[in-house]
Amino acid sequence: MSDAAPPSRRAVLTGAAAAMVAGRARADDTLITQVQPWSRNLGDPVAAAPYGLPTPHEFDVVRRTVDWLTADAYSSVSFTPIHALDGTITPQGCAFERHHSGAIDLRKEDYRLMVMGDVARPLVFTYADLERFPRDTRVAFCECAANSGMEWRGAQLNGAQYSHGMIHNMEYTGVPLRLLLEEAGYDTSRRWVYVEGADAASNGRSIPIKKALDDVLVAFKANGEALRREHGYPVRLVVPGFEGNLWIKWLRRIEVRDTPVHSREETSKYTDTLADGISRQFTFAMDAKSVITAPSPQAPVRHGDGPLVISGLAWSGRGAITRVDVTLDGGQNWKVARLAAPPAPMALCRFYLDVAWDGAEMLLQSRAIDDTGYVQPTKAQLHAARGMNSTYHNNGIQTWLMRADGSVENVEVS
Amino acid sequence: MSDAAPPSRRAVLTGAAAAMVAGRARADDTLITQVQPWSRNLGDPVAAAPYGLPTPHEFDVVRRTVDWLTADAYSSVSFTPIHALDGTITPQGCAFERHHSGAIDLRKEDYRLMVMGDVARPLVFTYADLERFPRDTRVAFCECAANSGMEWRGAQLNGAQYSHGMIHNMEYTGVPLRLLLEEAGYDTSRRWVYVEGADAASNGRSIPIKKALDDVLVAFKANGEALRREHGYPVRLVVPGFEGNLWIKWLRRIEVRDTPVHSREETSKYTDTLADGISRQFTFAMDAKSVITAPSPQAPVRHGDGPLVISGLAWSGRGAITRVDVTLDGGQNWKVARLAAPPAPMALCRFYLDVAWDGAEMLLQSRAIDDTGYVQPTKAQLHAARGMNSTYHNNGIQTWLMRADGSVENVEVS
Repeated sequence: MSDAAPPSRRAVLTGAAAAMVAGRARADDTLITQVQPWSRNLGDPVAAAPYGLPTPHEFDVVRRTVDWLTADAYSSVSFTPIHALDGTITPQGCAFERHHSGAIDLRKEDYRLMVMGDVARPLVFTYADLERFPRDTRVAFCECAANSGMEWRGAQLNGAQYSHGMIHNMEYTGVPLRLLLEEAGYDTSRRWVYVEGADAASNGRSIPIKKALDDVLVAFKANGEALRREHGYPVRLVVPGFEGNLWIKWLRRIEVRDTPVHSREETSKYTDTLADGISRQFTFAMDAKSVITAPSPQAPVRHGDGPLVISGLAWSGRGAITRVDVTLDGGQNWKVARLAAPPAPMALCRFYLDVAWDGAEMLLQSRAIDDTGYVQPTKAQLHAARGMNSTYHNNGIQTWLMRADGSVENVEVS
Repeated sequence: MSDAAPPSRRAVLTGAAAAMVAGRARADDTLITQVQPWSRNLGDPVAAAPYGLPTPHEFDVVRRTVDWLTADAYSSVSFTPIHALDGTITPQGCAFERHHSGAIDLRKEDYRLMVMGDVARPLVFTYADLERFPRDTRVAFCECAANSGMEWRGAQLNGAQYSHGMIHNMEYTGVPLRLLLEEAGYDTSRRWVYVEGADAASNGRSIPIKKALDDVLVAFKANGEALRREHGYPVRLVVPGFEGNLWIKWLRRIEVRDTPVHSREETSKYTDTLADGISRQFTFAMDAKSVITAPSPQAPVRHGDGPLVISGLAWSGRGAITRVDVTLDGGQNWKVARLAAPPAPMALCRFYLDVAWDGAEMLLQSRAIDDTGYVQPTKAQLHAARGMNSTYHNNGIQTWLMRADGSVENVEVS
């Protein structure tokens, strides 16, 4: 089985397994034998909701929080329900949020963006100004550096939403930051920009100007429409492949500098303390990572043996995913998963493995490989390299124990 | 200027135009000189809405209807606000709807799909059965055959939302219909399938089995999450490139046949009566088409001359867009627009043209070309070929008159 040649379903369904999945004429099934109310009566009129929400039947597919994780809900995080999604796009409405002093209400009319510091012409842009610059559209994932952080010292959160849900993937439209820096006449000898938001926490971060000039967007649309308030309306920074903390929401200020600021968010936070007590700083690019989203603790298997779809997400902040391997036995044997589409750089990639489940217990893992040749490590490999003190930047392989009854648990394997 | 080499913004901003767009330090701008409330106070807590909606400041970016277009709201249509969107993905919440007897409420537990007719094994699938088949994920546009139909006899609807908004573009996940037909053992000598929905209107349509075996999906996710009720929850058909009427919502039945059914929806409706009174039937693939979404009547230009971003959408039901041309003078001179990303087949493509507007009146048009070599025709060319009796399948070039004051009107050019 290779990602170039999707597995044959016929092969999957050979023998006894086929009878498990094939539909059957259910003679006693009144849903088939009798005309049902929804086939007799009118449904909702057009535009019953000018802007629609999910059906109430999907009420459980929402952002969730973990009460004990943060001191209050204003500097906190919610998690994307990745266990219940498929494909690659994350709808804004259920995309995880992280903010440090609450999601502020800022109107387009009140929006201002300063570009200053070591520039020939300090400038202030209105929202309408930004709309006059050439713009780009691209898909990018945003992953919080703390995603899977609670897993560093062992399996803790029983669900992919909690262990890996600080990530979303949207199509952004905005102005390349490069154009605004050029407009201001940035000093080309300078090596950093400092970016901050209009919220009280401001969340200031230093970014290498090389990245700022490359692919960073000053974005005003996500998945085609305006950013939601909790995602930085009206303007946020999009920093493809880099940790989510740099993706400044309610973007207010860009300062061209020769040195990083060493702000709170890049010293006491968002650094990785190693075994010797020295901390890694400026760990910008999110290394290749993957997770099986179903089956997973919140998405148990409710059918018996036979055909089973294993599905998950893979991503890399350093390029495009080239391959995803899946194991059913905790790493003894690996199979190459099928990728849903040619992977794009710094965007989520959906993978599938179609298996004939024998009904026995499984240890499910996935392993991502990107176009730099980097292979997603085990947690043991990460621990050996970085010790046990880290919280951020855990891209270790995740293990789910799937039992014979189809239930799934977050476990640690040595 | 070519689509391979994006236009230089420097070139666009040369001279007087530059001063128009560049931000300025506004000494009297209290939004800059004074700390504002949103920078002093907390915003909304995390997960203020477990499933979020757009900010109220964007209250006007919604589906809209046209009261006089249909007899009632149960067999009617709403329009996507394409004039206010950017990028290519359409959020489900503002994606146009068309249904013939209302959007029904159908639970996954009550869902059944019959595959019958000329098959070895008539089958009934539950939703859970479908989840066990290998699945695909892809982006596709869905355009109602009637999109722009009111424009056939002249400019009528003053806004891109109304003239071209019966279209949306989402990432779908589902089971290839081919797999279900194979599971049932379809008679390979048969040439058609008949598909219908569980709503009262049922909206039955005949589809060539060649297409059914090619790329049609029995889809349960759109943009990663469950289909919304108005988009066919829990299961709809996705028929890439083909007219939207075939994209059966609340999919109930698939019948393998040797002939088309000649149902209401493919005889008295969704056919094109030509000048000689004979009607074209089974005009499945939507020909290449494009529209400038901004500036447009609902998205007038509120700034003076100088840098102006012209943006729009292009698509083809026969393949991928290869080029989009834009004219500012009603077709006398054409420029090649910049495409936001490598176009995918049967998916919306976003184009941009960055111009230095001289402040004078313009006649804006766009023209799409696809990888079959097909060039989007003028309305005059379509009229010459098909007469004036058509309503469906109008893919003629659209003209916007943009006045010196920035207002925009839907006009006809000869």
